[in-house]
Amino acid sequence: MSDVSFERSHTLVQAIPYIQQFRGKTVVVKYGGNAMVSEQLKYDVISDIVLLSLVGIHIVLVHGGGPEINQMLKRVGKESKFINGLRYTDAETMDIVKMVLCGKVNKELVSLIEQRGGKAMGLSGLDGNMLRAKKLEKDGVDYGFVGDITEVDPDVIKTARDGGYVPIIATIAAGVDDGNAYNINADTAAAEIAIALGAEKLILLTDIKGLLRDKDDESTLIPVVRAHEVDALKAEGIISGGMIPKIDCCVNAMKGGVKRTHIIDGRERHSILVELLSDEGIGTMFINE
Amino acid sequence: MSDVSFERSHTLVQAIPYIQQFRGKTVVVKYGGNAMVSEQLKYDVISDIVLLSLVGIHIVLVHGGGPEINQMLKRVGKESKFINGLRYTDAETMDIVKMVLCGKVNKELVSLIEQRGGKAMGLSGLDGNMLRAKKLEKDGVDYGFVGDITEVDPDVIKTARDGGYVPIIATIAAGVDDGNAYNINADTAAAEIAIALGAEKLILLTDIKGLLRDKDDESTLIPVVRAHEVDALKAEGIISGGMIPKIDCCVNAMKGGVKRTHIIDGRERHSILVELLSDEGIGTMFINE
Amino acid sequence: MSDVSFERSHTLVQAIPYIQQFRGKTVVVKYGGNAMVSEQLKYDVISDIVLLSLVGIHIVLVHGGGPEINQMLKRVGKESKFINGLRYTDAETMDIVKMVLCGKVNKELVSLIEQRGGKAMGLSGLDGNMLRAKKLEKDGVDYGFVGDITEVDPDVIKTARDGGYVPIIATIAAGVDDGNAYNINADTAAAEIAIALGAEKLILLTDIKGLLRDKDDESTLIPVVRAHEVDALKAEGIISGGMIPKIDCCVNAMKGGVKRTHIIDGRERHSILVELLSDEGIGTMFINE
Amino acid sequence: MSDVSFERSHTLVQAIPYIQQFRGKTVVVKYGGNAMVSEQLKYDVISDIVLLSLVGIHIVLVHGGGPEINQMLKRVGKESKFINGLRYTDAETMDIVKMVLCGKVNKELVSLIEQRGGKAMGLSGLDGNMLRAKKLEKDGVDYGFVGDITEVDPDVIKTARDGGYVPIIATIAAGVDDGNAYNINADTAAAEIAIALGAEKLILLTDIKGLLRDKDDESTLIPVVRAHEVDALKAEGIISGGMIPKIDCCVNAMKGGVKRTHIIDGRERHSILVELLSDEGIGTMFINE
Amino acid sequence: MSDVSFERSHTLVQAIPYIQQFRGKTVVVKYGGNAMVSEQLKYDVISDIVLLSLVGIHIVLVHGGGPEINQMLKRVGKESKFINGLRYTDAETMDIVKMVLCGKVNKELVSLIEQRGGKAMGLSGLDGNMLRAKKLEKDGVDYGFVGDITEVDPDVIKTARDGGYVPIIATIAAGVDDGNAYNINADTAAAEIAIALGAEKLILLTDIKGLLRDKDDESTLIPVVRAHEVDALKAEGIISGGMIPKIDCCVNAMKGGVKRTHIIDGRERHSILVELLSDEGIGTMFINE
Amino acid sequence: MSDVSFERSHTLVQAIPYIQQFRGKTVVVKYGGNAMVSEQLKYDVISDIVLLSLVGIHIVLVHGGGPEINQMLKRVGKESKFINGLRYTDAETMDIVKMVLCGKVNKELVSLIEQRGGKAMGLSGLDGNMLRAKKLEKDGVDYGFVGDITEVDPDVIKTARDGGYVPIIATIAAGVDDGNAYNINADTAAAEIAIALGAEKLILLTDIKGLLRDKDDESTLIPVVRAHEVDALKAEGIISGGMIPKIDCCVNAMKGGVKRTHIIDGRERHSILVELLSDEGIGTMFINE
Repeated sequence: MSDVSFERSHTLVQAIPYIQQFRGKTVVVKYGGNAMVSEQLKYDVISDIVLLSLVGIHIVLVHGGGPEINQMLKRVGKESKFINGLRYTDAETMDIVKMVLCGKVNKELVSLIEQRGGKAMGLSGLDGNMLRAKKLEKDGVDYGFVGDITEVDPDVIKTARDGGYVPIIATIAAGVDDGNAYNINADTAAAEIAIALGAEKLILLTDIKGLLRDKDDESTLIPVVRAHEVDALKAEGIISGGMIPKIDCCVNAMKGGVKRTHIIDGRERHSILVELLSDEGIGTMFINE
Repeated sequence: MSDVSFERSHTLVQAIPYIQQFRGKTVVVKYGGNAMVSEQLKYDVISDIVLLSLVGIHIVLVHGGGPEINQMLKRVGKESKFINGLRYTDAETMDIVKMVLCGKVNKELVSLIEQRGGKAMGLSGLDGNMLRAKKLEKDGVDYGFVGDITEVDPDVIKTARDGGYVPIIATIAAGVDDGNAYNINADTAAAEIAIALGAEKLILLTDIKGLLRDKDDESTLIPVVRAHEVDALKAEGIISGGMIPKIDCCVNAMKGGVKRTHIIDGRERHSILVELLSDEGIGTMFINE
Repeated sequence: MSDVSFERSHTLVQAIPYIQQFRGKTVVVKYGGNAMVSEQLKYDVISDIVLLSLVGIHIVLVHGGGPEINQMLKRVGKESKFINGLRYTDAETMDIVKMVLCGKVNKELVSLIEQRGGKAMGLSGLDGNMLRAKKLEKDGVDYGFVGDITEVDPDVIKTARDGGYVPIIATIAAGVDDGNAYNINADTAAAEIAIALGAEKLILLTDIKGLLRDKDDESTLIPVVRAHEVDALKAEGIISGGMIPKIDCCVNAMKGGVKRTHIIDGRERHSILVELLSDEGIGTMFINE
Repeated sequence: MSDVSFERSHTLVQAIPYIQQFRGKTVVVKYGGNAMVSEQLKYDVISDIVLLSLVGIHIVLVHGGGPEINQMLKRVGKESKFINGLRYTDAETMDIVKMVLCGKVNKELVSLIEQRGGKAMGLSGLDGNMLRAKKLEKDGVDYGFVGDITEVDPDVIKTARDGGYVPIIATIAAGVDDGNAYNINADTAAAEIAIALGAEKLILLTDIKGLLRDKDDESTLIPVVRAHEVDALKAEGIISGGMIPKIDCCVNAMKGGVKRTHIIDGRERHSILVELLSDEGIGTMFINE
Repeated sequence: MSDVSFERSHTLVQAIPYIQQFRGKTVVVKYGGNAMVSEQLKYDVISDIVLLSLVGIHIVLVHGGGPEINQMLKRVGKESKFINGLRYTDAETMDIVKMVLCGKVNKELVSLIEQRGGKAMGLSGLDGNMLRAKKLEKDGVDYGFVGDITEVDPDVIKTARDGGYVPIIATIAAGVDDGNAYNINADTAAAEIAIALGAEKLILLTDIKGLLRDKDDESTLIPVVRAHEVDALKAEGIISGGMIPKIDCCVNAMKGGVKRTHIIDGRERHSILVELLSDEGIGTMFINE
Repeated sequence: MSDVSFERSHTLVQAIPYIQQFRGKTVVVKYGGNAMVSEQLKYDVISDIVLLSLVGIHIVLVHGGGPEINQMLKRVGKESKFINGLRYTDAETMDIVKMVLCGKVNKELVSLIEQRGGKAMGLSGLDGNMLRAKKLEKDGVDYGFVGDITEVDPDVIKTARDGGYVPIIATIAAGVDDGNAYNINADTAAAEIAIALGAEKLILLTDIKGLLRDKDDESTLIPVVRAHEVDALKAEGIISGGMIPKIDCCVNAMKGGVKRTHIIDGRERHSILVELLSDEGIGTMFINE
């Protein structure tokens, strides 16, 4: 037997305790940003998901698709417009958002999993009335068809999961009042879905190392944050800008019963596997205690 | 009690024998063309499907979306190009086709069913590796990413159906050789899906009355065609042009075990219900005997 | 397509929201009186039940059979004797009651449903020890084998229902103390069965319009009665005579958890369908609020 | 411990191999005649059935009720009329037959089993369309509503059996042509039901010892008859008169796949238990080899 | 029919009410001592268990094996050493204990049940991590590998039971702290298993009549002891010596939810059957009231 | 993220295609010899089995235990006696064999799997009558209680496997003629069990590299043998001595429907994992084509 074979086998059996810990549990992964743009990283994320499914961990993949939306808007000669960091979504934009998320990004992820030998089912929040929303009301601004989730019905996700498929979810919601489709922030949707499924973990794959004490120095990564420390960290300015809504999602998910939530760096290869199947904590983990 | 109420009840109980005939059976409906463009007709088709689901008939809806694809191509400044009646589909076009079918038409149908109180799951041939295809080879012409179905795995449809959802299917297939997405003719896909599901019936909703002996005279409708008569009807020129592939689909489905196939007029309101739940035969029915 | 076909289809789809409301729910119908004597009305009641079963509403039919019992008693030269509106039931009469209810009326209803293509299972309160009773003690009068229900075991009804059969129930009970068969008032039995099954609705099919403010003027029908108003209506004399026990059944059923109860006119054709699948409220509905 | 207790225990464990042989199997018992008239014998038959159910042997009880029918006919002043040993059944008689079998005999057996702590469901051939028949045509004689079984649908029996109930069956059938109820010979019905259920055994409880070589000498009992010997025994006149149809039932059941059939003496106490749970063969057993 | 056959049948049906009482319930039997040494008694115990399984009572057999352990220790030239009535179990002894209990006694019981036509699965407390223990700490004495149960996981027993097997359990436990195997007192293990299974009854088969008021006079048997009387009986010296731990097991089991517990005489043939399937109370029954 | 973490993740995802190939399949592993004596190797084998279970591959472990039997025989002063390579097994020896295999080796393997966080159920061929045998008749020699398998009932193994337990099997069989326990060769038992389970693979863990063309030169390993080549290899003397029965087991298993069989070197760490989850073929594989 070659040394390589031995080493590989040795590595595999080292994963035993981690697999035992999460087997039969549901883990919601929010996927977006750079990890979605690089082909290599995308292949790695897909590989991680297929492997985790094989060892009996139920992954639910929630995705965004900002860059692809921008690109398509450009192609039809429509300007991308953002207010307070949120995309202003008029009817025409909403149409593009829906097509890109449900018809392009979602189906591409499904294809990749199937090509890797996994089984996937692409869903949107419209299917089975999974995500219901009303028009976002915030600061008196009109964001168009940007929605605020009012209800999650996880049955359609469970049907896919229990049928042995990885559910891949595009975050479009059905308007409870008007039947229109609404654009939903993917982090928020992932958190709400994790709560509705009673998930063990919520993992946000991002473009940063995690929460840094000094945002310009990766060595100042804060590995663990207790939920009750979040307010202080905001006051200190350590949690600021785009991190605020992300971390609010994490805290919210934990209030809703999700055991642990993580902000990890999607720019590193196999970051999902490292987080779930090794001792090496990466990124920032939020815990309740 | 009002006369109206009595009349309605009377109508409902007259449907009993038809419901009993198809209960628990699967009926594949190919939906496209004008029935898809008119809001009223669309509402009626959706209503028919929701009612049929409620009485225990399993509808599987397969849809195309030619007009919407043309519109989107136009919007991005891309010309629609057809060869021998088939859309020439280069990579850029394929991208648009996928987005429009899976992200716009499919999700709109899902929304309509959900708004009517039904339960729907939007799928494409990519999900669960449902439709697999190779590049179409016909007459030595290159049609780009137009595919020829090589295999159908109906498991993902059954998962949706058995979970109580109406499966809504966009006819994109996964390339067996190259992993690319391929554009599939919706009639053909519907026929293959009907075979794979062991469906009781295949219904093609079209823009014509059915097969006419004189194509300019609707009074010459041929209500029933036996499979063995098709060749003669082709020789006589009665089956010609765009009817040839449609009727080949019907014959093919019957060879594959589907009991009966129908070409009916989607321009008439509730044509699906009339076909399934009344004595009035409409359109042309193809039978094996 | 004919106008008739369109109209019929239109009627069918109008039933969608009503079907959605009651699908998978259990509705107990007490059937007796004139609706049982007229062949046309009987055919309509049976048709309604078969249709409701087909759309997934679980009907449990509880029946009496007074007129047929009288007829049979006459045939064997035995006088029908009533005390305070209750049939005095000696051993010989009980024998006839059992034969007529279980062997004639019950099996005739089963046959009619089967002939209409439905599936029915005829049961009595003796089967599976469904209804248990002790001798009625009221006003110091001896009514013979007239019983007072002490316990309902709905398992045998559920076995029939879950097997896809409409349970048809003759209201004979097993004596807890002596093993004799007891004659049970069908309204009371229907109410107790509705409670034991956690039914959504109890419908009493009667020979009157409903509760009338002036019993000689059908235009004075009271469409809705709140449970707490019943005492006042009794005091006013509006609820009187034979209506008292019927309405007590309704109130009792609601106390036991049945959502709504109805007294409707079995002399009108399809009154069950009109009640369940239309907006037209008929008869008198009792509600808890 | 008392000697009695020891002896009883000893007897119980001696039944082990017999129970093991028939556990999970279905045994159809035709019950009628004297075993049904004597209260003691009836109590014993019921006890046997309850015990066999408890040890996991599925008993299906098919009953007649000739004496009770005669008695009721007499009571309504109607003469019992027999042609070639078959009851001539006009419409009025049929009405009485149905009431007595389904409403009296059947429900009495149900009550007895329930009183003994067992679970029973009383059924007729009308329930679930179990027995279907056409008018008997034999020797050019009109027997009225006497039927010939054309089809058996055992689903309703299985629903009862699998729900843990002993199915008790009154042999009334639904006319396939006219929807009328037909009177069916109980031996024949039992044989057809045994075939439809794939029963292990058919046991006919009769008023005789079994097949006797000399009908006046019980010591000439023939314990085992091979199917192929039946014709010779008929030729010899050993099988004659009322025994012919009974033994034809046995042979017919075996042709239909029932392993063994028995004609045993219902006048002896616990004859069913002795047949099934001991080495002592009683009556006549018919075997295929 | 012979008188013997009648008598046997009569005996069988007398068991009906007792079988009805315990059907589908779980009864844990601790088996050891003389009932295990005599071949006749062993055959009777096995027969009782097989019969009880056949009538649907779930027996779980927990066994010791002291005499066989002593014999084997002797054979390898190792002295049996007891401290305060407990076997001092060094590593070498533990090895022998495990082999004798799991490999000899357990498998012999399995064989006997299988030979009697039953189905058995031999388990130890190690299988499926059923019994977990820590080193016994009592009176400052070192008993070696004698364990104190800390946890019972009954899943492996349920898997066997629900698969139709009689679980036969050797009382070896896994050390929670060190992974060593520990020797567990069989009475204690039986009580803990009965609690974990929510058993109806715990029966300890012993070498004595039951609890005697005067231990030298079997006529002073105390048939029923209420839990609250135990302390007084200890104070009086009626419960003393080896009876103390046995009766503590009984009381403990009842505190844990077991309905009734029994100390019965395994030296009498069929004592289990007599206890469960007759009116004759034998031995001493402990009840909660 | 550390390089180590990346490398480990990379290794894990490389296992994907191998896991996909064997998921849900049953693999029978015969375990014995040196791989069982070395603590390190034993730990590795156990780790491999636990990992394979976690990824959904159903391992059934069949074990021998020759060295431990010899040791125990020695301890009781009994000489090990072999005839033609088979252990002569008198009654006393059989007793020891049973105790060592079922009570020591089997339970130790169970403990190790449980300690590694897996779930195991220790069984012998006696449990559930799994292995039935008659006395071996070969060359007119009396081998005592050495058996020849006549029947395998895999139900008890399936009950364990489907309950989520790794079945660990000691190869003792029940004598069909005399009820005695018989000693069975573990390779043979493994092959018969693999056939009865319809296993995908049979793997014999041995003390050699595999089949060598020159038995003294490991570089002459024959990696693949086709079933039809076996006779020639025997004729050439390449298959000889102790290899003959082993390879006959492999050929026999393939005749019985097992897809592939392997003889691999248990002296190398993780040889099971390498065989199943890598491209590196080790040892000798026997294939049918």
